[in-house]
Amino acid sequence: MIFSSDNWAGAHPAVAQRLFDVSGGFASAYGTSDLDQMVYQRFNEIFEREVAVFFVGTGTAANSLALASVARTGGVTFCHHEAHIHTDECGAPGFFAHGSRLHPVSGANAKIDPQALSAAIARFPEGGVHFGQAAAVSITQATEFGTVYSLEEIEAVSAVARETGLPLHMDGARFANALSALGCTPADMTWKRGVDVLSFGGTKNGCWMAEALVIMDPAKARDMPYLRKRSAQLFSKSRFIAAQFDAYLQDGLWMSMAAHANAMAERLRAGLARSNRCRNAWDTQANEVFAVIPKSVMDEAQKAGARFYDWPVPADQPDLAAEDEVLIRLVTSFATHEEEVDGLLRLFG
Amino acid sequence: MIFSSDNWAGAHPAVAQRLFDVSGGFASAYGTSDLDQMVYQRFNEIFEREVAVFFVGTGTAANSLALASVARTGGVTFCHHEAHIHTDECGAPGFFAHGSRLHPVSGANAKIDPQALSAAIARFPEGGVHFGQAAAVSITQATEFGTVYSLEEIEAVSAVARETGLPLHMDGARFANALSALGCTPADMTWKRGVDVLSFGGTKNGCWMAEALVIMDPAKARDMPYLRKRSAQLFSKSRFIAAQFDAYLQDGLWMSMAAHANAMAERLRAGLARSNRCRNAWDTQANEVFAVIPKSVMDEAQKAGARFYDWPVPADQPDLAAEDEVLIRLVTSFATHEEEVDGLLRLFG
Amino acid sequence: MIFSSDNWAGAHPAVAQRLFDVSGGFASAYGTSDLDQMVYQRFNEIFEREVAVFFVGTGTAANSLALASVARTGGVTFCHHEAHIHTDECGAPGFFAHGSRLHPVSGANAKIDPQALSAAIARFPEGGVHFGQAAAVSITQATEFGTVYSLEEIEAVSAVARETGLPLHMDGARFANALSALGCTPADMTWKRGVDVLSFGGTKNGCWMAEALVIMDPAKARDMPYLRKRSAQLFSKSRFIAAQFDAYLQDGLWMSMAAHANAMAERLRAGLARSNRCRNAWDTQANEVFAVIPKSVMDEAQKAGARFYDWPVPADQPDLAAEDEVLIRLVTSFATHEEEVDGLLRLFG
Amino acid sequence: MIFSSDNWAGAHPAVAQRLFDVSGGFASAYGTSDLDQMVYQRFNEIFEREVAVFFVGTGTAANSLALASVARTGGVTFCHHEAHIHTDECGAPGFFAHGSRLHPVSGANAKIDPQALSAAIARFPEGGVHFGQAAAVSITQATEFGTVYSLEEIEAVSAVARETGLPLHMDGARFANALSALGCTPADMTWKRGVDVLSFGGTKNGCWMAEALVIMDPAKARDMPYLRKRSAQLFSKSRFIAAQFDAYLQDGLWMSMAAHANAMAERLRAGLARSNRCRNAWDTQANEVFAVIPKSVMDEAQKAGARFYDWPVPADQPDLAAEDEVLIRLVTSFATHEEEVDGLLRLFG
Repeated sequence: MIFSSDNWAGAHPAVAQRLFDVSGGFASAYGTSDLDQMVYQRFNEIFEREVAVFFVGTGTAANSLALASVARTGGVTFCHHEAHIHTDECGAPGFFAHGSRLHPVSGANAKIDPQALSAAIARFPEGGVHFGQAAAVSITQATEFGTVYSLEEIEAVSAVARETGLPLHMDGARFANALSALGCTPADMTWKRGVDVLSFGGTKNGCWMAEALVIMDPAKARDMPYLRKRSAQLFSKSRFIAAQFDAYLQDGLWMSMAAHANAMAERLRAGLARSNRCRNAWDTQANEVFAVIPKSVMDEAQKAGARFYDWPVPADQPDLAAEDEVLIRLVTSFATHEEEVDGLLRLFG
Repeated sequence: MIFSSDNWAGAHPAVAQRLFDVSGGFASAYGTSDLDQMVYQRFNEIFEREVAVFFVGTGTAANSLALASVARTGGVTFCHHEAHIHTDECGAPGFFAHGSRLHPVSGANAKIDPQALSAAIARFPEGGVHFGQAAAVSITQATEFGTVYSLEEIEAVSAVARETGLPLHMDGARFANALSALGCTPADMTWKRGVDVLSFGGTKNGCWMAEALVIMDPAKARDMPYLRKRSAQLFSKSRFIAAQFDAYLQDGLWMSMAAHANAMAERLRAGLARSNRCRNAWDTQANEVFAVIPKSVMDEAQKAGARFYDWPVPADQPDLAAEDEVLIRLVTSFATHEEEVDGLLRLFG
Repeated sequence: MIFSSDNWAGAHPAVAQRLFDVSGGFASAYGTSDLDQMVYQRFNEIFEREVAVFFVGTGTAANSLALASVARTGGVTFCHHEAHIHTDECGAPGFFAHGSRLHPVSGANAKIDPQALSAAIARFPEGGVHFGQAAAVSITQATEFGTVYSLEEIEAVSAVARETGLPLHMDGARFANALSALGCTPADMTWKRGVDVLSFGGTKNGCWMAEALVIMDPAKARDMPYLRKRSAQLFSKSRFIAAQFDAYLQDGLWMSMAAHANAMAERLRAGLARSNRCRNAWDTQANEVFAVIPKSVMDEAQKAGARFYDWPVPADQPDLAAEDEVLIRLVTSFATHEEEVDGLLRLFG
Repeated sequence: MIFSSDNWAGAHPAVAQRLFDVSGGFASAYGTSDLDQMVYQRFNEIFEREVAVFFVGTGTAANSLALASVARTGGVTFCHHEAHIHTDECGAPGFFAHGSRLHPVSGANAKIDPQALSAAIARFPEGGVHFGQAAAVSITQATEFGTVYSLEEIEAVSAVARETGLPLHMDGARFANALSALGCTPADMTWKRGVDVLSFGGTKNGCWMAEALVIMDPAKARDMPYLRKRSAQLFSKSRFIAAQFDAYLQDGLWMSMAAHANAMAERLRAGLARSNRCRNAWDTQANEVFAVIPKSVMDEAQKAGARFYDWPVPADQPDLAAEDEVLIRLVTSFATHEEEVDGLLRLFG
């Protein structure tokens, strides 16, 4: 009963097998092999346009390089205050982008409120050297709260970015889960809505370590090869990432894994909705569920072998949990079994 | 007949199999799993002392983080002018260490000359703010020229570092090949000779992507967890690196792979010594061979399917090759077959 | 009627004269001249202990170097959300400290609330690599809101810093004004209260360009000469700063200038308290006054030649000004005349 | 008898006086005052085109910001191995430009050899991510060796830069001295020869602290306001720099000071040419003279009160001085008197 994180799972057997299969033989290094090239092409197909793809090692690398690629001196990137880049990356975005800063913006359900974004950007007018300059906007899809921006919501944020001339980045560590929740195409959720740069995550959804930085307009990727190399993210035996993505993207494996993870989360949510002792903290759409449960229940569940993290109550919802209750996060993945979900729900009662 | 680089090989079957075997189930993330812990312990055994081990993604990352961990403001790291960190890492060491610089030092066979090192360090006296301050010394073992520092040679460089209070880093991208050439223990070649920080490479010697930063004195590793995370080198499913090292270090696989690669290089050198048209450019001890061959031979060999790179003639040996000759580099690996070596030698005539 | 900023004033005649007087002759460069040395000694006297003094060019430099000197990888510096380093320095602190971040803390009157500080620091526990690590605390004395920390308030913040092992920085761009308001000694307001590093400002209080970074424990200043030089803040003809400080610190000129500026602010506050149309927005103690005035009055005053800036209403006091009112900031300096104050008050009615 | 450096002199009386004169009254801050604006206009006149001018505090700042403004990721700036930015700025250029590196190029008389430059740039082909990418070329005029590039020599370097698409920076810490030596106009020596960015130094030639970064094409200056502010080089009371430049540039004061310094150097050179014991080390054209003198003479001269620095013998001229001789550097300035020169020459015999 592991609900700690989707990165506690290993690799899907098909991904592991593909990686094993390509281990023999020789191939040119640093992302130039036939397999690498073939997977780049696959990305073009998936996004229905020519895109520039750069394999990197971690989501932090994808996000930080994305933001570095659009950085400006004294630059400010606007993101939700709960964004992973803001809270969980040890300042990597600021390091990669030479001291650029993240400016937190509020909004319900961990999604940026377009009006709040507009107001935040307005505080950094062109020429206001003391404040620094607006550089980019970043959204997380799915969000850290398990919610998913609708296409209209992406469009609304994108419109603000466009009006103010700022590029739009999407942190897609859980891209497939969001896509599955919305039931739209990758193109729909990204460049057709104004997304310029995407962190395309595979690790949390059944790969070992496969992340890609996708720049929608290849003409804007000129410096990225150097950015990636200088940041120590260019892998010599790059085909070991390519192989993972090859299996991941074949026959819709990635979408079926995400659909499964989401379904397991839905099963959790439904069970919580029926519980007398526990409840959903808020509505989620992807593979994360946030629940408020009695502390005593948490203790029992953990004693019984369930693994999950308690979570800080959001500052803007101080009354979410009673004193003897606790907010917890439950994450499902391609590897979550129905039996585990049902077992957990039984413990929650 | 692939002699382009040891990173054109894939992964050894045992490494690939082990990675496949651990792909199922759940494990705690970010380097905390049982498998990770077990491999850290294996490093302690190999180095005959407690060391601090940090898995990272690339040799560039290992080197850059090592140097960043001993960086000082306005700092200068002394390395051979042919060192990989100096010529081939797109400035990563300077980026990771906030603008610190590399100061090239000369020496025969791509090894630092201790006297030249001493003289170079003397140009950065304490308090000389205009020049910056001496920060570290870095050696490459085996070197970029396929040569290997003897234990006495390491000791001589180390003595200079010690006298001037500078930490000593070893770039061990081809650590196993050097170790095999010297026939000594890891401890002998590192901390017993004064090496403080080691980039321990597994990728070039049969892994997919397995590099470790080894800090000999764990007390000096306090900031490394943050350095690694901020540099986007902390992998969530860290066990995929642990699994590779687990197989790599089991039953001496790593040393037998290195011994094989070295033996194939020796076979090449011996063949070249017998050639009428080609010759060894200089003597090497590890898995790289440098040869001077007629351009016409290079063309024929490449037409016949041989793969290798031509190489710039070292500035201090301008007469190495005649006008119709070319310097080439030949790299062997765990995956190199005798037949390939013999085939290449036949082409060289 | 210039109340835009204390940096719109020029230099006090005594400062200008002293600078003129030392312009002839030769002196050793880079802070080593007799005059430089004499002024360093003067700082020792003023602070009643041996301190390490580094002249720099701007307040931004002093603050950024101070924070860089105590930076840690992935480091987080805690400051009030209205702090100058947070809002007005174009990200310089993050740049100088290699991507370190500022973490805003709340508190009334632009002063850090010790409990809020304690809670904020607690979110960065040792070993929490995803969040980064707590590195320093910074307070502004006098604050951006014209208020002044009492000695007890400094002590309270300092106690939190001490308990958590964090160094305490004081941004003293208006150090003299705060000192004058409190009527205590420099030692009382700094190291006796736990301040470790001080940005000692002279520019806003009658110098041309004279800022000093004061490290209370000289043993902790080892890297600062390199930090300063690498940041391009080491001035060759350093005596031109020394000369300014020499005049500034002679016969209490600095304190009498600050006392005058504060008195002019007090005269403004008293006048505003008597006004029917305008009012003090909040109580201030140093040389800044914040007032709420009708927009029509602002327009008239500006037409009549008064110069001052309107100011954003603090987020936590949204009802401070009515719709037809505006918040303005009025800054006095050594060069402000009573007649100007009275003239402005007449315009305010 | 001070020949240590031109930065041991103070400020010219006219500069000091002008600074005194503007000390009263109020003026808008951060480079927006009428006086600032007027001086910007003066630069346009001097350069016979509209240029973008940014006052900064030190030559290191001007150089580092210039190079940062044209930096590229993994960037390499080509400069002579004796360039100030390479040897004397504590790594500031690398820090300001985020880890960009300086690549030393050789050439006689401390001037870049165009062929060597061309060869050096060729080692960094577009797309060679391991090596990094060529970013800029920097020359020093006058050089660190007291020599001056002729217009043809600048043109020759510039041609290489232009062909390879690299911007050309000129470190003009001794710009006026070079200009005086060549007898040409500022336009002739800069943008008419392909110089894109200039560090225009005033400090060494009679100012207290007045340096300007001049970007020849204002359209390329878009980010500089932020670069300068983020680097803590935007001065609030900017008019104190403007005032210095105002006097400096008035009635040709700057050129007459430079001419005087050069004449004093010429007097030194002529005297040395007549000496039996001492000799000019090489021919210089600006205000620095390098001499080879017996150690015993150096000791006597210093005992008699002469101040100058001994200098490392250039690596490519190892036989410059005999064992009992020493290489010394003698720098003249606007403040050097004929009597001092003659006094020194008498000591040299």
